[in-house]
Order: sequence, then C-alpha cells, then structure tokens
Amino acid sequence: MKGKKYANYIDTYPDFPIPNVFFRDIFPLIAEVSVFKEMIEKLADKSKSLSPDKILSVEARGFIIGTALSLEMGISMLPARKKGKLPGEKVSYEYKLEYGTSTLQIMRNAIKPGERVLLADDVLATGGTTHAAIRLIKAAGGVPVGLASLIELTFLKGRKLIEDKTFQVISLVEYDE
Amino acid sequence: MKGKKYANYIDTYPDFPIPNVFFRDIFPLIAEVSVFKEMIEKLADKSKSLSPDKILSVEARGFIIGTALSLEMGISMLPARKKGKLPGEKVSYEYKLEYGTSTLQIMRNAIKPGERVLLADDVLATGGTTHAAIRLIKAAGGVPVGLASLIELTFLKGRKLIEDKTFQVISLVEYDE
Repeated sequence: MKGKKYANYIDTYPDFPIPNVFFRDIFPLIAEVSVFKEMIEKLADKSKSLSPDKILSVEARGFIIGTALSLEMGISMLPARKKGKLPGEKVSYEYKLEYGTSTLQIMRNAIKPGERVLLADDVLATGGTTHAAIRLIKAAGGVPVGLASLIELTFLKGRKLIEDKTFQVISLVEYDE
Repeated sequence: MKGKKYANYIDTYPDFPIPNVFFRDIFPLIAEVSVFKEMIEKLADKSKSLSPDKILSVEARGFIIGTALSLEMGISMLPARKKGKLPGEKVSYEYKLEYGTSTLQIMRNAIKPGERVLLADDVLATGGTTHAAIRLIKAAGGVPVGLASLIELTFLKGRKLIEDKTFQVISLVEYDE
C-alpha cells in the first residue's frame, strides 16, 4: 500500500454515506498540521513539473487542499462550486458522482485562454468530479494539466476515466479496496 | 471604511443570491496569493492573544480561511459541516441564515472538554452561522474564544448577536452597507 505512514491519520467509516462504501475521513490528518504540511509540500514538489498557472479546487473539501497548495506554490486558487453558489457568468457541467448526480460551475472569466490549470482535491474516487472539472477548464479555454490529490481509491479506476497523455494524476495515499 | 486596501480585491454582485443582497465575492482576493497571505498573517497575529487550542471552520468557504490559519498558526483545524456530510457520532444545531435555514454538525469527539476554540470564516454577516458554531463548541464541552473573519458586514450587526465578554470578533474589512 502506498502512503501507509499518512494512512495512519485517516479514519475509515464503513457504510457511509451509503451501504458498501468505506468513507475515508481526512480530517484527523488535516488536524495533524505538521503531517498535512509535509503532504502539501510533497504534492507541490511533484506538481511543479506540470508548470501550472492556476489551481482549481472543487468545494468543499477540495478547498482545503487547493488553499494549502496555493499558499505553498504561490499560485492562484480558483473555485469550482455546486450550482447556484457562484455569482456572475458561469460555465456549467452536470455529472455522475459515486452516489447521485451533481452540477459543477466555474466563473466564465476565471481562466484565460491557454492557461495551465492544476486540479487539487482530497480524494480521487471514480473520477467523476475530476472529469467534470476537466470539462469545465476546457470549456473556459484552459489546459487541464493534472490532479494533485491526497488520496486515490485505486479500485474505482478513476485514473482510467481521466488520465490521458497530457493529464497527470499525483496522489500520496492509495487504497486498493 | 476599514480595510479599503483589501476591499479592492473583493468583487460585489448586487441581488445575489436573492434580491436586495450585495454578494461580496472573496475569490479574487484569495487568488491574489500575496495579499491573501498578508491577511492570514494579520488574522493569526490578532488571534494569538486568544490562545486557541483548535480552529473550527464552517464549510465551504470557511474551510479556505480555516486551512490557511491552521497552517500559519500551527493549530489543528476541525470542520463544521452541513447535515449528512460528517460520519460517526455528531453534535447538531439548526439555525437561521441570512436567507433560509440550515443544520450544522461537528463530530462529537472533535473537541476535548475545556479546549479553547477559534472560529475561522470569510464573512461575518448576521452572525447566524457563527452563533450556531458557538453553540456546537459549547455542546461539545469546548470554549469558543473568538472569530477570525476576513470581512464583516457591520450593518447586519452580527457582532451584537455573538459577542460577549469572553468571545472576540476579529475582522479585517468592514462593509457598512
């Protein structure tokens, strides 16, 4: 298992929020500030080669990783939010979640044409959210260069859905069940 | 007006999300990393005298301020989330918002008896969310010592609702309309 040292700080709740799902709770890890800081430094270091101009993070927990990465790398963070949360002109995309569906939005002027955008999130599961965010970045004229995630649930094969030659997934902890 | 320098980075949208509300968009400010960093350093400096043991932040935008403050001060951040988002045993509180109602939850074991808890948020409006978070901290046995907020909408008098002898509000930008 990759990232066992960090996984010690992650709690697991069976059958949450629905039966047969193991919920991985990252908040005990976030609360261990020195450990969280070390992980953010690692994500920043591994993301450098992607030369991102901006960081995009999806609410709500994604904001935690996006904020920390933005401050560490000195790169602007932009929000992707659920429908109705952002003001002004928006780009929208409806997508399937591990459980249910959702509509994600970014502000239309958030990304300049050609800007390289790094996604930041806590967990890569089925890849649905990341896939939606990639679509939004492209619709706004940006270039999605990769995802920096604390955790990857490898058995859900999210990487397969989203990764291509020009998009790279970086994760520090892997769960294979 | 207090904090005019910072207010230059905050966008205003009239009639969002409902008529007669001026929505203050903090994301352009968050995206100006050096300015955001300076504000977090100021909030951290002003919060020190409250000697907090932990930081509590309310999703979603509160996570941004809570994360930045946690990393700056080296103090653990705990989440307060909307109903159904947190696993395990919880403490709940239903409250009124500027528009609508909401139920806020924290994990029952998140705060140890007597721990001093600092709230972190982006905007202090009517004080409803802060008041709910204070109730949750007390219900968990903690001591709410104050709120560190980027913005305060002084005309909504949130400070009146929440501030007492032992709870201090710290904000960097004030809007009086």
